[in-house]
Parts: sequence; structure tokens; C-alpha cells
Amino acid sequence: MALINENFLKLQAGYLFPEIGRRVRAFKVQNPDAKVISLGIGDVTQPLAPAIIKAMKKAVADLARRETFRGYGPEQGYDFLIEAIIKNDFNSRGVELEKTEVFVSDGTKCDTGNIQELFGLDNIIAVTDPVYPVYVDTNVMAGRAGNPTQTGQFDRIVYMPCTAENDFVPALPSTKVDLIYLCYPNNPTGAVATKEQLKKWVDYARENRAIIFFDAAYEMFITDPAVPHSIYEIEGAKDVAIEFRSFSKTAGFTGVRCAFTVVPKQLKAYTKNGRAVEVNPIWNRRHTTKFNGASYISQAGAAAVYTPDGQKQCRKIINRYMKNAATIRKALTKLGYKVYGGINAPYIWLKTPNNISSWNFFDLLLSKAHLVGTPGSGFGPSGEGYFRLTAFGSPDDVKEAMQRFASVQL
Amino acid sequence: MALINENFLKLQAGYLFPEIGRRVRAFKVQNPDAKVISLGIGDVTQPLAPAIIKAMKKAVADLARRETFRGYGPEQGYDFLIEAIIKNDFNSRGVELEKTEVFVSDGTKCDTGNIQELFGLDNIIAVTDPVYPVYVDTNVMAGRAGNPTQTGQFDRIVYMPCTAENDFVPALPSTKVDLIYLCYPNNPTGAVATKEQLKKWVDYARENRAIIFFDAAYEMFITDPAVPHSIYEIEGAKDVAIEFRSFSKTAGFTGVRCAFTVVPKQLKAYTKNGRAVEVNPIWNRRHTTKFNGASYISQAGAAAVYTPDGQKQCRKIINRYMKNAATIRKALTKLGYKVYGGINAPYIWLKTPNNISSWNFFDLLLSKAHLVGTPGSGFGPSGEGYFRLTAFGSPDDVKEAMQRFASVQL
Repeated sequence: MALINENFLKLQAGYLFPEIGRRVRAFKVQNPDAKVISLGIGDVTQPLAPAIIKAMKKAVADLARRETFRGYGPEQGYDFLIEAIIKNDFNSRGVELEKTEVFVSDGTKCDTGNIQELFGLDNIIAVTDPVYPVYVDTNVMAGRAGNPTQTGQFDRIVYMPCTAENDFVPALPSTKVDLIYLCYPNNPTGAVATKEQLKKWVDYARENRAIIFFDAAYEMFITDPAVPHSIYEIEGAKDVAIEFRSFSKTAGFTGVRCAFTVVPKQLKAYTKNGRAVEVNPIWNRRHTTKFNGASYISQAGAAAVYTPDGQKQCRKIINRYMKNAATIRKALTKLGYKVYGGINAPYIWLKTPNNISSWNFFDLLLSKAHLVGTPGSGFGPSGEGYFRLTAFGSPDDVKEAMQRFASVQL
Repeated sequence: MALINENFLKLQAGYLFPEIGRRVRAFKVQNPDAKVISLGIGDVTQPLAPAIIKAMKKAVADLARRETFRGYGPEQGYDFLIEAIIKNDFNSRGVELEKTEVFVSDGTKCDTGNIQELFGLDNIIAVTDPVYPVYVDTNVMAGRAGNPTQTGQFDRIVYMPCTAENDFVPALPSTKVDLIYLCYPNNPTGAVATKEQLKKWVDYARENRAIIFFDAAYEMFITDPAVPHSIYEIEGAKDVAIEFRSFSKTAGFTGVRCAFTVVPKQLKAYTKNGRAVEVNPIWNRRHTTKFNGASYISQAGAAAVYTPDGQKQCRKIINRYMKNAATIRKALTKLGYKVYGGINAPYIWLKTPNNISSWNFFDLLLSKAHLVGTPGSGFGPSGEGYFRLTAFGSPDDVKEAMQRFASVQL
């Protein structure tokens, strides 16, 4: 008899974004003429940079001729991309990496979801609260999370509240944890971690032989030169941290699919009887067994991000989004909202007015202003009473959304 | 302390193809002037069909303009592709499917590797021997395979020998199994399963509430009209079978990345206390949590496979490969080799001469004829003494390879 993995049955019915999609579709059926503006899901809207388009057109043309055709590439990614990544994203910030420490993939959602497979079921997971749901859900599926509690959390996960009081960077946990998910610039709060704050985490991990999963998918949105882009800018981090990067927001690749993960050679985990095991070859084994490489076309496009034209063009698009973020911050602050984020990140995290719940605010915003955002409670209990807006809309939509905020009594 | 998943440590050092790559690279370093021809890894060599190139160029151009830009698509794939799949691959063979039963992905390697996650660790897995290594390795990683034995097998997996005696279609297992991996047309043996043979398996699964994972990645190579292309051509299969399909070999997408998996709504697995659970929503939950959709460009290319031009052009390429298969079969048979497959599949499975071991034959073929194939023992103990050649080379390479076979004393 085929037994189901009963851990899946512990998950809540809907992943956050499908639930939002469901409510928006229901609203549109009821209100077919309403012009709904979404500042909800973190999807980009600007077309790809011309340098990327050019490179992908060439890549498609390569596949049309036998002499230039490419079949299976290395599962870990093409050298032309890995070399550009190391030079531009790491060497430029004083971080040295070997090519075999970088693994190209089709998305950071996949990589942050898959990374837990490398580790035993007995590890204690620590996540921030609020948190990107994928970190938690994938541990629930694996059976590492324990059972759901009344608050919708899980009893074997250590949740680290991130609130305005701690600048949305959590305190070290009071109980021992083994695997720590951190995301900075943060989704959903838009907060960043300073070098000093990250150093505390690296030191903690080194002392406790823990491992940090550092999701840096939004590093390109950092505007403050003092804020680190990579956790490897912190001394000793290579011993204890795996870093995730994505082209999704950096270069508009949400539909193209390309990302990468850095697993330093010196990073170790341990067998139950204390033997140190290098994690890099284990991830390599997983990657080569369960994945067959990112599309050649996507990798060619990603490599173009690092050309001088690509850098300039992508920066221009990012700046455009960050101008949206500034527009949102300014308008909502003027309306009396308490607003966080949006300076080094494409996310604006606002306190709902009058302590209204996040989902009630969602429904209100949708029904009264025809605006879609993301309920903070969807990211965890500490997100209750907060609401996430993204800066990825078109400037016109963002302006109209802010006018609706101003004109509608919420 | 971060604990490693010790199941990974039970895996053999190298996945088969990386090991082949290593030996070939070592040979080339020693023999820089040798022209090595590979009939080894199952990678295509012909450029993509013009209809596919055209569709992908258009898709890239779509991403260059705001009006046609696509960000995140549905994780399950675009309707334009799913509808074409259902109509062409299934309705045409009398199989009805709902759109929500088809899940587009970036590869069958990924899907056949990930499918086991949905099921409990107590299930007994059955695989053919020889077998595509991914089925076994992913179960080892999950902890479902038990411990390695002296033969390189695992003590909790049921291996079903496929030999010339049973036409490479296994007998039903004598002990009870829960999850059964079948691949027809088969990699590596090139064998196919008739409707009668598949019906036995479907009946077994229905009687035992087992589930069949049916890998049909090579269905387009079937030439015999009596051979089923989909397991759903067998009555009752929708209750017990998940089917995997790929554009990799069908349309040369090994570097483009697109595939799909069918999980019928009526398929059920069970909790430990016997409650039936629909598998489709569980796979959907996994797919939407750990995957973010195949590239829009790849999906646009895949949809073009189903246009009249695409069908004609892809068929022409397949025929070209199958002509290679015929060339190999004919030449090797003439040389006195015992040859299987290559009629409804792009794989030729040959018996090594004089009972020489598969890896020794590999080394001999590489050193004497500068030819690369795949050692049968890499697919399991019953593959020992066999050797896999693929039909994916260029016709010229295949001809030269056959001349080398003829002229060299192996």
C-alpha cells in the first residue's frame, strides 16, 4: 500500500500567494470592471534589459545551428556564467570563491527549498518571524518541523520575532539551534542587516557549529554603502554560511529562471557521532542527481547582466523600482501610516491602521481601493497587523495606487 | 550542531555520468590528438526545429516589451502549453485529462527525482535492474533505500532483473511493493512494454494499492503502432499511475529544459491508518512551494513542438536518430554482437563480447577505438556484461564509430 508522506498533511491548505490569487480572482468575478492594481506578489513588471535580450536571442540562434548547438550543460552551470558571478558579485567586494563553490540553478525558491534535504531530521531550525513561507513549509514537508500549534507555527521550529523594536533583525536565540534561515535585505520587512549584526550570527554559528542559510536575493537593492551585500563579507562566514542569490529581482528574471547558490568548500556539517563532513560535495551530489542545469538561454541572459551594458541597464531598472519605493514611503507616511523598509529593499512594510488584522486590511484594500498587497500575517504571527507592498509596479500604477490610498477611507 | 543527512553518505562516490566524464577527460589529457566520439551520454546533437526556434525568438522578444512581458507564470505551467499537451499527447490516443492533472517542469530528471518526497519513508520501492540511477539515488538520499549491500544495491529496495530472458520487462515481484518505477521505452535497454505487459502492472498496483511511476520520456521513439505511448492507454491506470514526459529527447530540449508530469485526480495514496489521500493536491503543494515554473521561453518553445510544422520537423529529427539506431544495430549484429533495443527507443543495449565486464569494455573501447559508451553495470548488477550506445550522435559520427568497431580488435 502506497503510504503518503503525512508531513504534507500538516501544512495549511494554501500557500500564501495562491490564496491571494484566489481572493483576487473572486473579487474580479464580482467586479469585472474594477481596475485592480497589484502591489502584492513580488513580481517584476519592467521588460528585460536590452543587453539581456540580445544575449538570449543569440543563445536561441545558437540552438538553431549544429555547430553552436548546446545540449546538456554542466548541472552546476556554465563556466562563462560562474566566472562572471565570482568576479562581479564577490571579488568586487573582496570575497574570493572557487568555481566549484558556485552552483547555478533555476531559482532561489528551489534552492532555499531544497537545501534542507542535505541535513538530518534532528536539526533544530530557526527562522525569523515574519518569514518567507518556503523556508518553513519545506521543513514541514521533510518532517523537521514537528506539529502545528494553534498559532499556525510548528512546535520544533524556533521562531525569532522581528519587530520594529529590534529593527527587524532578530536577537540570538535563547535555545540552541542548528540551521538558521536569514534573509537580508529582508522579504517581507524590507530591513537590512549591518555587518555588526551579521557578525553576531556568524560568531554564533561558529561557536555552535550551526549553519546559516543566507538568502541575499535582494542585494542589488541595497543603497547604503555600509550594508554588506554578501554574508561572506563577514570574517569567518565561509565556515558556516550558504548564500543564495537570484537574477529574478536583480534582472527581471522571474519568468526566465536563473539563480545561484554558494556552498563554500570549508563549510562543514557533522554526523551524529561528531565527524565533520564537507557540505559542498553533498550539495553537488544532490544538484547533479536531481537537477539537470538551468536553461542555456537563461544562463546566457544571466551572463549578460554582468556586461557593462547589462549592469548599467539593470541598475536603471532597479532605480526605477526604488523610486516607486520612495513614492510609496512618502505618500503613506504623509497619510499617517507607520512605514518600514523601501530604502535598501523593494519591500515596504507598513503597520495596519487601528490594529486591524492583516487579512481584514487586505480585504478592505481590495474591496474599497481595488488594490492588492500581501497580508503580513501570511509571513508569520509577528507579521500580524502588518502589510507588505512591493515596489515592482509600474510608476503610473504606483502613483494611482497612492492616490487611491489617499482618497479611500480604510 | 548542524547534522548532515547521513543517507547521502551511503551513496557511491560518483553518479554514473560524471564518472564517465572523468575517465574521458583523463584520456583526452593523455591523448590530446585523439578524436573521441561519444555514443555514451543520452544527449541530443541535432539543432532545434525551426518552428521551436521561431517560437523562442518570439518569446524572448515578448520579454523586451512591457506590454508583452511575462514575469512569474503559473508554477504548474502555462495553459497554452498544457492544452497543447493534453490534446496532442493524450486525447489523440483516447486519454482524457484535466488541465490540473498536468504539471509542467524543467525536467523529468527533476520530477522523477522529486516524486518520492510525496510518500512515506516506510514504502517499499521496486525498480528494474538495470535502472536509470536517479530513481534509486533519490530514494537513498531520502532514507527509503536502507543500507548498501556488497553488490552496490540497497537492502530495502526490491530489484527486478530485466534480462534478455524476460525481454527486459520484469516479472511481478514475489514480495509486496508499494512504489514501482517503470520506464518504457526503456533507458538503458531500449526495450518496450506491450499493453498486455503494462496491464499486468496496472492490475498489480490496483490490487495492492501500489503506485506506478511511469517514465515515458522516450515515447516519441516508438515505431511499432501496437506499443502504448502512455500508461493511461491501459484501463484503470489513472487510479494508480503517475506519468513523466520530457521534451529533452522528443524535441532536443536537453539544454532548454522543459518536461511535464501527469498526476491524475483519482490517484490515491494512504495514511498509515488507511485513509485515502488524493496525491494530485500534494504534488501541487510541493510544486508550488519548491518550484517557480519552467522558463517562459522554454514553455513557448515546447508549445511549438505541437504545431503542424513543429510536429513535422521534430519527427524528421527523430527519424534521423532512429536511422542511426538502425545503422548501429546492423553494423554490430554483422560483427557478431548480440544487440537489443534501437527499434522503439534511441538506446542500443549490447552484450559485451567474451563476457568482458562493462567497465573493462568501456576502457577498451575508449583506449582502442576512442569511442565512449555507457557501461551497463552503471545501471545495476543485471547490466553487468552489457553496454549502452545511444543513437543521438551525428550520422557521420555514427558511421565512423561503426567503422572503428569493425577495424579494432576489442
